[in-house]
Amino acid sequence: MLQMIDPVDEDTCQEHVELVPMERAEAERAARMLKAVSDPTRLQLLSMIQSSPKGEACVCDLTKPLGLTQPTVSHHLKLLADAGLLTRDKRGIWVWFAIVPERLEAIRALLA
Amino acid sequence: MLQMIDPVDEDTCQEHVELVPMERAEAERAARMLKAVSDPTRLQLLSMIQSSPKGEACVCDLTKPLGLTQPTVSHHLKLLADAGLLTRDKRGIWVWFAIVPERLEAIRALLA
Repeated sequence: MLQMIDPVDEDTCQEHVELVPMERAEAERAARMLKAVSDPTRLQLLSMIQSSPKGEACVCDLTKPLGLTQPTVSHHLKLLADAGLLTRDKRGIWVWFAIVPERLEAIRALLA
Repeated sequence: MLQMIDPVDEDTCQEHVELVPMERAEAERAARMLKAVSDPTRLQLLSMIQSSPKGEACVCDLTKPLGLTQPTVSHHLKLLADAGLLTRDKRGIWVWFAIVPERLEAIRALLA
């Protein structure tokens, strides 16, 4: 059927534009960072750490509000830390996490 | 073993803070939006549409720079449109896509 259509009337894309995409390696790096935050539990963890009075939170305070076990919470925190979004600091038997604001800003800049 | 550790020395988390997470429904909505952009090909598509002279791009101009087939590109564009990040406008045989800036801004705000 398409061959029967008058190409002048129907091909609406006659002025082709050359578009240059973001470099693949950069896009892959960015996608990895975004994937780390594309999870509801991880967004909830980030929101709790961000709103904590001292800007950091102990794992022991992060489990109860979410109703999750400590291994589950620790798993999500590890993914965020691996993506560079959180720093971790072991004190005695507990680990404390703080946001890396520059890293969150880097993700925001990607979407600007 | 833990029972043998002096709790005063070792429990570094004695001042418990009550942390309130982002609402679950909101976190799930946000995660869905973030998931839509957590893919290198979709980030490359967004970058091309965003940098196009008229702020919109035809599918026909988006396939070649990525070296992908049109069905693959159309699939990724559909996911971005479903997430509300792109508008689509069919003109003749081609579909044109434009960014929805408010929606990108909403994602950025999530990470503020």
